[in-house]
Amino acid sequence: MDSAKPANVVQLDAHGGLRHLLTLDGLPRGQIARLLDRAEELREQSHGGTRTLDLLAGRTVINLFFEPSTRTRTSFDLAAQRLGAHVINFDIASSSTSKGESLLDTVHTLEAMHCDAFVVRHKESGTPAYIARHLHSNAAVLNAGDGNHAHPTQGLLDALTLRRHVQDFSTLRVAICGDIRHSRVARSDVHALRALGVRDLRVCAPAQLLPDVDEFAHCRLFEDFDAALDGANVAIMLRLQKERMQAAIPSEAEYFERFGLSTQRLQRAAPECLVMHPGPMNRGVEIAGEVADGPRSLILEQVGNGVFVRMAVLAELLAGAASR
Amino acid sequence: MDSAKPANVVQLDAHGGLRHLLTLDGLPRGQIARLLDRAEELREQSHGGTRTLDLLAGRTVINLFFEPSTRTRTSFDLAAQRLGAHVINFDIASSSTSKGESLLDTVHTLEAMHCDAFVVRHKESGTPAYIARHLHSNAAVLNAGDGNHAHPTQGLLDALTLRRHVQDFSTLRVAICGDIRHSRVARSDVHALRALGVRDLRVCAPAQLLPDVDEFAHCRLFEDFDAALDGANVAIMLRLQKERMQAAIPSEAEYFERFGLSTQRLQRAAPECLVMHPGPMNRGVEIAGEVADGPRSLILEQVGNGVFVRMAVLAELLAGAASR
Amino acid sequence: MDSAKPANVVQLDAHGGLRHLLTLDGLPRGQIARLLDRAEELREQSHGGTRTLDLLAGRTVINLFFEPSTRTRTSFDLAAQRLGAHVINFDIASSSTSKGESLLDTVHTLEAMHCDAFVVRHKESGTPAYIARHLHSNAAVLNAGDGNHAHPTQGLLDALTLRRHVQDFSTLRVAICGDIRHSRVARSDVHALRALGVRDLRVCAPAQLLPDVDEFAHCRLFEDFDAALDGANVAIMLRLQKERMQAAIPSEAEYFERFGLSTQRLQRAAPECLVMHPGPMNRGVEIAGEVADGPRSLILEQVGNGVFVRMAVLAELLAGAASR
Repeated sequence: MDSAKPANVVQLDAHGGLRHLLTLDGLPRGQIARLLDRAEELREQSHGGTRTLDLLAGRTVINLFFEPSTRTRTSFDLAAQRLGAHVINFDIASSSTSKGESLLDTVHTLEAMHCDAFVVRHKESGTPAYIARHLHSNAAVLNAGDGNHAHPTQGLLDALTLRRHVQDFSTLRVAICGDIRHSRVARSDVHALRALGVRDLRVCAPAQLLPDVDEFAHCRLFEDFDAALDGANVAIMLRLQKERMQAAIPSEAEYFERFGLSTQRLQRAAPECLVMHPGPMNRGVEIAGEVADGPRSLILEQVGNGVFVRMAVLAELLAGAASR
Repeated sequence: MDSAKPANVVQLDAHGGLRHLLTLDGLPRGQIARLLDRAEELREQSHGGTRTLDLLAGRTVINLFFEPSTRTRTSFDLAAQRLGAHVINFDIASSSTSKGESLLDTVHTLEAMHCDAFVVRHKESGTPAYIARHLHSNAAVLNAGDGNHAHPTQGLLDALTLRRHVQDFSTLRVAICGDIRHSRVARSDVHALRALGVRDLRVCAPAQLLPDVDEFAHCRLFEDFDAALDGANVAIMLRLQKERMQAAIPSEAEYFERFGLSTQRLQRAAPECLVMHPGPMNRGVEIAGEVADGPRSLILEQVGNGVFVRMAVLAELLAGAASR
Repeated sequence: MDSAKPANVVQLDAHGGLRHLLTLDGLPRGQIARLLDRAEELREQSHGGTRTLDLLAGRTVINLFFEPSTRTRTSFDLAAQRLGAHVINFDIASSSTSKGESLLDTVHTLEAMHCDAFVVRHKESGTPAYIARHLHSNAAVLNAGDGNHAHPTQGLLDALTLRRHVQDFSTLRVAICGDIRHSRVARSDVHALRALGVRDLRVCAPAQLLPDVDEFAHCRLFEDFDAALDGANVAIMLRLQKERMQAAIPSEAEYFERFGLSTQRLQRAAPECLVMHPGPMNRGVEIAGEVADGPRSLILEQVGNGVFVRMAVLAELLAGAASR
């Protein structure tokens, strides 16, 4: 049965071209570089997002969000609008389409109205790939976050952000800290960073929130954040879901004490260590406000790059080679 | 008092031209044909919905939905966007404007901001006509479904869909099955089909859900779906509202047994009988999944035609003769 | 600390130019006149709101509404769309961003996606000014109503409406009646009317809902609506919040009896007294339906002018001198 096909197989066409963006896992390094290059081109062509392009004029992009999200949805919405596309925001309480059947009926109905891209967020891993496998049309599926599985545009925007600050990835030391086990951001960041050539990758979490060793085979696992941070050039802090924290750590204060990035703790890292966070932040829980707002923070650059990366993915999937 | 004027009188101007689209009941056959022809023209001109036209550039279309609906609202939204209009989606909990006075204040307020068309869905029959009678401006009202009364764009899209598959309507046998009594779709379909020249029209429902004989005077009424389906060339299955079903039939399984369209039951119909459903479907209740997805199903074609029909109605009402 | 700076200082740049629109209090009379003139120009250029201008093509306007509002948000949405801007509607339950920190994180995130203007409504006075003081970019903030403080575009649209009907403001007698104490509309109207040169300004409310004398120093305060209305050329009726009424008056009927504008009571005013209301109205509470719909009512003109005033403010703040 084709539902067993891994996401990376589904997202590539017979010639290795990108049909959907479901995961960065297994995506060829050249594809990733090409998307990042295109994001830079679109930044220039759109004058930093202030000039509307017509690459996707007449095209229809549907934001199909089964989980609430304002920031990611707004980023995709702006990306599509700035490429000249029509945008439909289709928010769905998970409850009303909890069954696979009716999910596909919704998708096929929207396809029948003609739709060029679905931007999908869903709390269950694999939903975007499931949709991609069952499409009737040539529509593209963009994964905007599925369960613990992947958040590929976040991985790409983090890669784009780092590429603007880092010369040599082969000697870079990157620490990712937070609820690694349940984090789609951590997974997509690891895939993006390895594609850029990063070799020293460290993931750090409280014991209960560490992932299986096999899944993060190329990373070193830490329970001690001080050790993980030692000599790091980049620290990526993840948002802690409050409901998960309680399983791991008795209080926010104690979490911050052990895993929060404070100014003091940052001194363990390499000089000029860059600080990243996918947002939204819990200030005082996983990151101190003064670090988030400090001179090493790339957090708002990440947000800005997110729009260009999403423009690039939409342009790549919908406008194709013809428009380049 | 003018509130007694029937909807069909309200929707026509002094020269018989279309001012609003409130019902297909009494709408001249030529008007219906003209709207269907225009839908086909717009399908071509918009390259199947992938090229934005500028027929309604600068115009404002307001989706005024007092009942939740994502599929119909999205269809109107795309239709308006693809004609170049500005679209405002104005969802209103029925509760906050349950009184007629405040409904009209809302409408007059939106008119005062300049609005060219109101697309209105409301759970009470007659609300779109009520709004049309009390407008201050030249805005057009498009009924997107009112109570049990009418859903004229659904009737038109079903007619458009059938016209693409059927040569001779005079010999066609059409069976509509479901909660006929409460169905605005059944009413608008009957009006559209009669305008196309269909003479053998059969409606079928459990006894409690059959309509008054007078209202469906040109149809034959059936409680036995097998009999209704006998030799039919088209079967239109209606969505069963779960809360209504319980009054009629003890369980979904029993409903399906007696009134559901299964592959087996479909053999009672004429060979190559076409299958339609306005959506959203309850698979396994009024229609078997394999029939819905089968080779005779026009269900997704209906959805696609819906956008072109709505473009045609908007263009006819707003762009007028000048743009043709 | 800069948070002590009054809103009027924040909204002007070093040369006295308008950077944000936070309040009409202290805004130079020339600035107000200029905005009203521009609204008239835009009314003409947009052919009454039916032709889209491209003054803000490529620009992004974000409606950041922390309080529900459909009418004001729709007015800003249409204003921005008719100037060619991209619009993002960002509705936020007050609860999720009740803390200042996360409010600013939201704002900075949206700024980082590039945003030219924030249209802000919030139940707490001072929030738009707070945001304006903490922006990272050149984005403009437009106050769409903050607590009891200000609703400057309402003040401007009321001024624009009156300017179309009144020759000489210096001899005009204006009565504003309702919950003055808690009304941002009353405050902004008083500032706008004084800028137009109105000298005889009367505010009227039940005792508990009268403001402090100091704050409305240039107005006469009344508890007796008949006295306040005596010889008035303009009556501005305010919406009564039901929850506030109960503190002031035992019932809606009694409120109407004492403070409602009936046809009979209107005879106390000057002949041809103009009637205004910012909407939405409680008919039969603060205003009789026949007065609201009567020949002296400017209520729907106010709504129409609202779109042009908001276009003018957006154009002034974003398109700058270059486009004039």
